[in-house]
This record gives sequence, C-alpha cells and structure tokens, in this order.
Amino acid sequence: MKIDGRHYRSLWWNDEKGVLEIIDQCWLPHDFRVVPVETMQEFSDAIYEMRVRGAPLIGATAAYGMALAMAEDPSDANMDAAWTYLEKTRPTAINLRWALDRARATLLPMPERERAAAALALAHEIADEDVEINRRIGENGLALIREIAAGKPEGEPVRLLTHCNAGWLATVDWGTATSPMYQAHDAGIPLHIWVDETRPRNQGALTSWELGKHGVPHTYITDNAGGHLMQHGMVDMVITGTDRTTRCGDVCNKIGTYLKALAAQDNGVPFYVALPSPTIDWTVRDGVAEIPIEERKTEEVTHIQGRTEAGAIDAVQVTPDGTPGGNPAFDVTPNRLVTGLITERGVCEASEQGLTGLFPEFAQAAE
Amino acid sequence: MKIDGRHYRSLWWNDEKGVLEIIDQCWLPHDFRVVPVETMQEFSDAIYEMRVRGAPLIGATAAYGMALAMAEDPSDANMDAAWTYLEKTRPTAINLRWALDRARATLLPMPERERAAAALALAHEIADEDVEINRRIGENGLALIREIAAGKPEGEPVRLLTHCNAGWLATVDWGTATSPMYQAHDAGIPLHIWVDETRPRNQGALTSWELGKHGVPHTYITDNAGGHLMQHGMVDMVITGTDRTTRCGDVCNKIGTYLKALAAQDNGVPFYVALPSPTIDWTVRDGVAEIPIEERKTEEVTHIQGRTEAGAIDAVQVTPDGTPGGNPAFDVTPNRLVTGLITERGVCEASEQGLTGLFPEFAQAAE
Repeated sequence: MKIDGRHYRSLWWNDEKGVLEIIDQCWLPHDFRVVPVETMQEFSDAIYEMRVRGAPLIGATAAYGMALAMAEDPSDANMDAAWTYLEKTRPTAINLRWALDRARATLLPMPERERAAAALALAHEIADEDVEINRRIGENGLALIREIAAGKPEGEPVRLLTHCNAGWLATVDWGTATSPMYQAHDAGIPLHIWVDETRPRNQGALTSWELGKHGVPHTYITDNAGGHLMQHGMVDMVITGTDRTTRCGDVCNKIGTYLKALAAQDNGVPFYVALPSPTIDWTVRDGVAEIPIEERKTEEVTHIQGRTEAGAIDAVQVTPDGTPGGNPAFDVTPNRLVTGLITERGVCEASEQGLTGLFPEFAQAAE
Repeated sequence: MKIDGRHYRSLWWNDEKGVLEIIDQCWLPHDFRVVPVETMQEFSDAIYEMRVRGAPLIGATAAYGMALAMAEDPSDANMDAAWTYLEKTRPTAINLRWALDRARATLLPMPERERAAAALALAHEIADEDVEINRRIGENGLALIREIAAGKPEGEPVRLLTHCNAGWLATVDWGTATSPMYQAHDAGIPLHIWVDETRPRNQGALTSWELGKHGVPHTYITDNAGGHLMQHGMVDMVITGTDRTTRCGDVCNKIGTYLKALAAQDNGVPFYVALPSPTIDWTVRDGVAEIPIEERKTEEVTHIQGRTEAGAIDAVQVTPDGTPGGNPAFDVTPNRLVTGLITERGVCEASEQGLTGLFPEFAQAAE
C-alpha cells in the first residue's frame, strides 16, 4: 500500500544486493526504517522480536529464510536444521510452518545444486501469492461492507472495529482484515474504523499509521472500549485477522479477540474473520484445546514503548518494580461466535462444512 | 492498609495544620507523595486529574471540599456554588453527588455560624463510615472466597480476577473489591490475584502496588488476557468494584468491566461486584440507557506514563502524530451478567428485589 504516495510492500527482495529487505516494525509508527535480513540469526530475530509480524508475513519471511539456508548449504541436513530453527521462533501462527513445509516439499526431491535458486523462486512466489490472496479477500469483504452501506442513509459511514494489526504490515500487501476496508474506501464508501490499541504490543498504532497514510478515517481506542461502543450501536461490523483457524472454524488470533467476539454476539454485531487459506490448520479441530498459545516475555506487559516529548523512542515501566506479569499472546474464539470467514475464495460459515466447501482439496489432503 | 509496615488511609485530616492531606495517586506506583488540598481549585483538580480516584474516595474528598467551602463562606449561595463546582468534576461515580447531597441536607437547616464545624465533622463521619462499610464488605466477600477454597485441595490458591483499582486507594481504607481479598489473605487462605492493567490509566499498577505491599500473590495482565484465562479454567471468581449501580443492579464500572462479565458468563465463572451502598443510584433503573459515561481526554489513550530507565516519570506517545483517540471511561454491565452484589449488609442478587431487600429504607426514600 502507499506511504506518502509511494507504493511499498512490507518486505521485498533487493536484486542488486541479493538480500531481503524489510520494514522494521519495531520502530513504527514513530520511525520508518528499512533493514536487510542477511543471516539465519537475523531471520530468527526478525520473527521472534516482531520486526516482521502477522501470520502471512511471517510465512513469507520464513520462505526467504529457507532460501538463505539453501544458498549457504543445500544439504538435506541443513534443510531440516533451518526448518527447526525458523519454526521455533513463533509457535502459534500456522503460516510459518505452512511455508516451511511447502519449501521442504518442493526442495527435497531436487538435486542440491538446484535448491538455492528454487528456494528463492518459491519465496518470491509465496510473497506474490500472498498479495493476490489478500486482494481477493478484500473483494469478498467489500461485498459485505457494500451491503451494510446500502442499508444506511447516503453518506453515513460504515463503522468497523478491528483488533491488532491485520493490515498490510501483517502481510506482504493489502492486509487481511484491512483489505476490505482499503477497497471499500477506494470505492468511495464512507468508513470509520475503530482501532483497538491491542495491548501489550499496541499494534493498533500500526493500524492507525496505515489507515492514516491511506486516508481512512479512524479512531484509536483502548481494548476495553469496544463492548461499550457496541452496546450503544456504534459498531456495524467487526473484522479481525487470525494467526491460525482450525478445520472447524475456531479462530486463534491476538489476545483479546475472543472478548470482542463475545461483545459482538451480545449486541447482534456481525463478527467476521479475514483469512488467507494458508492460515487454516486442517489438522486441528478444537482450537481452545489444541492450539499452543505463545507466552511472551513479561516486559512486553510491564513496559511500554513510545516516543518521548524530546523525540527519542524509549520504554517506560508502568508497574511497580518486581511485579510479576503474565503475557499470553493469543486466544481462541470458538466458531459459534464467528459470523463468517472471509477467504480468497469467498465468504463461508465458520465450520468444517464451510471451510471444506471452499477448499475441498486442502481439506482432503490433510486427512 | 499497610505500606512497609505502617498503616495509612488514602486521605486524612491533618489536625495540626487544619488541612486535608491525600496520597497523590498520579505518581503511584513509582513515587509515594503526600500533598495537602487547600483550595477549592485544588479539590476540583485533585478529583478531575485523578489524584484521588475511585467512587468511595471521591465521595469522601467531596465532603471535605464542602467543609472547606463552608469555612470560607457558609452562605446558602456558596453551598450551592460548591455543590455545583465539585459535582461537575466527574459525571459518572454517584458517590460524589451522594456526599454533596448529604452535606447539603445536613447543613442547610443549620445556622450559618455552625456550618463550618458541622461540615468538617460530617466529612470525618463519611470517611470513617466508608472504612467500616468496606470492612464489612470484606467480611461478606470473605465468606464467598471461603466456599471456593473449601472446594479445592488443601493449599491450592483461590484465583481471583479484578479490573481497575477497587482497592484501598479507591476508598478511604480496605477497598471494595480488594477488601475480601485482604481479609482472606489475612485469614490464611491462599490466593492468587489476576490484576487487569486497566487501560487507559493503568490502575492495575495501583492494585499491584497495594497487593505487593500487603504481600498478596498476584500477576499483572493485559485487559485482553482475562477471557483466555477463564477459557482455560484459571479463574475461580471475578470481583470488581463499581462507580454507580442502578436500583435494578446494572453495574457501571471502569471501561472493560462488561467484557470480563461476558467472558465470565461464557465460562461459568462467578462474577461479583463489591459495593458500598452510597454507590447505588436508586433513581436509575436501566444503566446502559441512563448513566452518563464520562468521555476523558484523548491523551490518556495515546500517551502512557511510566518510569524511564533513568528513573524519571515521563509519558511516551504510542500512536502516530495526530491520531484521533476515543476515551469513554466507563461501561455498564447489565445485571443479567452479575452473579451477585457484595454489600456491607450482605450479598444479594443483582436485581431490584435483591437491593431493596437489603436496603429497604434507601429504596423507599428515593421513590
């Protein structure tokens, strides 16, 4: 999407230097920094420290990581080592494993000498596919927004609430949850986005930055506020992304999503989840029982990063010294709370029937 | 309660200087500062800027404000002016109006020359009453905690979740939601408290500070985490405070309380609200429709205060420049989501029948 009129993806291959470059999201929204990722250690750190983040973007990054590994040493042993090394960086988003599995399945039958080039080509392919998938998610979500707009007086905005950043920064381009928003805005439908700040990492600031750069009207709110807004009829629809959706349509996403889904249900607000098919874990049915939830470090909760009045990017400690903090990074929204899933192939019910109806070949392959 | 072994209230009258002193909560948990409140402007600022905060403590502070007004000018006109001036500082907590109304009802029939002394005596009385009320709330809540403890293996902690700070800092002493916790801890029942950070003002840091000073085990979590914890059976009971509870048992409390009540219901976790009777608004039935919700300034959401590594207390900006923020400070939890109300006279159903059964004379007086 555009930043001050210039088009960017969240990562790209620098052909001249032969290296992956990323927008380092740890400095956003205050500072726009592009950094290269040149070693396996840097790939691991970039994912773990959330310099790149969001399920689809993690997948694409991991594919480039595998390409680097194959350039360094295309042996089977190194392929396995790279798979393991990259996979352990984040345990919840399924796209990471999906991309690594896809790379291994593609590369393993090849002679070693062809693997480096093939791995890089595959990473490009995964990145390009992600862009196209998200564009289509946007088209399918746009139809839902159009319906809501049609039921409103001319000029009244459709009010959408989103949690975390499922924006173009969480993907290669377009975003998942934001793709319908960008397309609706570009189609001239008036929108107003309620942006959950999304503690502890405040990814809402990334969403605000994106929306602001694209010119979409929005308001940044605490994660606590959404229920109140829904009670007072100020939200027409919720759209979130997901880090892993089960075969039965349970949605694992950034911690706090479940609370918004409960509030949506209690107030009759439609709750949609936008997802590219690589985010579906066809091997898992019960999300609450089966999906491992990453527990991240305490400092993410007890300290908050931002910009000081003097302009420095610094962290402040909010809690008393020594306060124990808990930091589960994701939760699972049971399918019964999800109105529908917006995928690249259309919108379906959050159920096994819904998902297998749209993606019969993937469902079958996993059986 | 105790700070490093010494007993404090959150405010007290300094007889020697003839002035009210408060713990200035804007600097907690990083810095413990006691400041005098000596002018009407300082009373107004202390309440608006949340140097004193929490429904019961606001009530007591307002009573001292009225005492100052009467010492300055005990006329009827000044009494009305002080009522209006203090009442507008916070629109949601009903205790503010309750204390001012009580002062006016007491003082108006008196000759002017007696009003200053009577107003001060009344403020002392309200403060002392608050302590006694909260002590009794603790006894009544303790019985509920004992029941849960009795159903657990010896030594396993009762895990309570609380939102905001309904601790002794929000009252004159004991707290409302925390009073049962302190009494259970003192009675030797093992506890573990999940402390919601409570954005945007992070009052969870105050609760952590209090609990830490008293030695009660706890974990500070984001507001987003509670639903996930309940889904995984890690919460035995929720206890919150309230800023205003309607005649029918709808509970207005810090923004985000409603989301926790929804999660508690969805997971079969008992959800209790601790409240002193002055927090009941007998004139209001439907909380969502009738209670005015204070909208506070945007900077509370876009900026976060804490302690820098260098030790200074500073605020950092989290959002991009110019991001519009929304900041509703309270929400309303409908009575259907509340398991019970813990009052100074016992525990009752969150309903008109429940409340009027415990407080028939107040209910009747408001009719």
